Amino acid sequence: MSEPRYDVIAIGNAIVDVTATCSDELIEELGMAKGGMTLIDADQASELYDAMGPAREFSGGSAANTLAGLSALGAQCAFVGQVAADQLGQVFAHDIRAVGIDFDTPPREGEPPTARCLIFVTPDGQRTMNTFLGASQFLPASALNEEAIGGASILFLEGYLWDPEQPRAAMRHAIETAKGAGRKVAFTLSDAFVIERYGDDFRALINDGLIDILFANKVELAAITGEDDFDAGIATLQDKVPTLVVTRSEEGAVGVHRGTRADVKAEPIDKVVDTTGAGDLFAAGFLAGYVRQQPLETCLRMGSIAAAEVISHYGPRPETDLAKLMAAKLG
Amino acid sequence: MSEPRYDVIAIGNAIVDVTATCSDELIEELGMAKGGMTLIDADQASELYDAMGPAREFSGGSAANTLAGLSALGAQCAFVGQVAADQLGQVFAHDIRAVGIDFDTPPREGEPPTARCLIFVTPDGQRTMNTFLGASQFLPASALNEEAIGGASILFLEGYLWDPEQPRAAMRHAIETAKGAGRKVAFTLSDAFVIERYGDDFRALINDGLIDILFANKVELAAITGEDDFDAGIATLQDKVPTLVVTRSEEGAVGVHRGTRADVKAEPIDKVVDTTGAGDLFAAGFLAGYVRQQPLETCLRMGSIAAAEVISHYGPRPETDLAKLMAAKLG
Repeated sequence: MSEPRYDVIAIGNAIVDVTATCSDELIEELGMAKGGMTLIDADQASELYDAMGPAREFSGGSAANTLAGLSALGAQCAFVGQVAADQLGQVFAHDIRAVGIDFDTPPREGEPPTARCLIFVTPDGQRTMNTFLGASQFLPASALNEEAIGGASILFLEGYLWDPEQPRAAMRHAIETAKGAGRKVAFTLSDAFVIERYGDDFRALINDGLIDILFANKVELAAITGEDDFDAGIATLQDKVPTLVVTRSEEGAVGVHRGTRADVKAEPIDKVVDTTGAGDLFAAGFLAGYVRQQPLETCLRMGSIAAAEVISHYGPRPETDLAKLMAAKLG
Repeated sequence: MSEPRYDVIAIGNAIVDVTATCSDELIEELGMAKGGMTLIDADQASELYDAMGPAREFSGGSAANTLAGLSALGAQCAFVGQVAADQLGQVFAHDIRAVGIDFDTPPREGEPPTARCLIFVTPDGQRTMNTFLGASQFLPASALNEEAIGGASILFLEGYLWDPEQPRAAMRHAIETAKGAGRKVAFTLSDAFVIERYGDDFRALINDGLIDILFANKVELAAITGEDDFDAGIATLQDKVPTLVVTRSEEGAVGVHRGTRADVKAEPIDKVVDTTGAGDLFAAGFLAGYVRQQPLETCLRMGSIAAAEVISHYGPRPETDLAKLMAAKLG
């Protein structure tokens, strides 16, 4: 096995976040499930956009955000995802390349446009997301570079992208390629709604030993295991994946690596501005530690620190020098 | 004269800001004049974008930012500006309408795309702007609604848009319309480079009594008067316009209304994050007081408070409830 060219290669939604603040009343009025993620079509996107206050645009996408954090922490990364040949696609491509991530998936001509996520942020910092998948759902398996996947220590996949058929097939193929090359596969469950739809697929991947590192939050843990009790959920999963990482917002996070468990507290912050990207950046911090073979607890702390940074400002990617922050916090 | 429908109608660049942080070294390396504004063409825009770090997008445009502040302070406003029929044009239109501003200029089909401003923000919070005027420069005089202009208390114009020929003609026509209807004309000099090119035009407008409220910063005051001494500059202009407003960053601002001068200090803030929009929001606060017939000093203070808010975060438009902030600060 040759020396890996990348620490992490990820397949994910190539998406631009459109972020606006709003009142709790508006969330209710629009019938949105606060804190959740809902898939919407082009018409719904247009209607919701009309109801939205003045916004700002950030490149987003769960796995892409994780890579942005990893890259900031010195990891070599590549991203695979489908944008359209339009202005938002240019924005996405610019922003991911600007942080040093290789991104070679050619833009797709014609409709639909680049994916966007309309994010409503309430005064408590909670984000409620409405995703129009657009071009993202047409990522073809042919976009995968097998050599790049085989040459990355970790293949990182986001559950969100399991929903559309083409990327699902591409991800299945990528898993085969990575495992065939003796690499590790990391998977984030993304959201309870994906588990509702594709829980059986995910459980099969887990039971077949295809997932080496599994990321979930406590809601997703309950959804995938059917256990309402947190520790019972952990117990159900911990022997099925070599590394299990479960975040639970302000209650911190838990990791279990080959039977050994570690718990960390959430990193204290002054004010939660916008929780968008919290889970993504937790995964970034964790994986940055993992690829440097840090102890489990250090990996979890790195996740907490990266997550705390991203929720202290608008936007789903780090705005401060994460490497410096990490050095200061870890001593 | 019928009751005005709008407090302020503005003609300006319809532009999206692409904002990234950068080091002072990069400003130097790219040969940019720190703190200034440079017009760039499509090729230069593409090159500079490649050199830029990860960015976020905000709707911008000097006069449009001023209106966003005015609208937040309860003024009735309308905007006239040219976007292209593209995604950034949709972003601009959404954001200006989302704050309650009437915006009816139809998007322009075909090339060039919607204007954008590549903004490099250094660690001291200073912004260095590179503007690709795109569709903005093709605003036709036919886009003007004479009834709306005649029915607005104030016509507000940005000097930036004097550069391209079509909008310049449109603005000249708008001035005639407004003056013919007995309305007031407010003009911001925008940047020293515009004065270099069009100072004679501006001086003619002033000498012909066509400008009722003139906004400048200290550099623009020196450029338009040829006086290096600040007070000499004020003295040169103060009898030529009924209301003169000159900002001088952290040194505060000066207003002269029909011979009476008032000075205010800059509003103290914790940290300057991004000075983009400082002058625009000063004008917003000032005009919000002006249309409510507040005393000169109150108008200036309102300008200072609005400017302080916008430089405390990224992006050129207010993010906090300006009306509430104003009420709290003014008591």
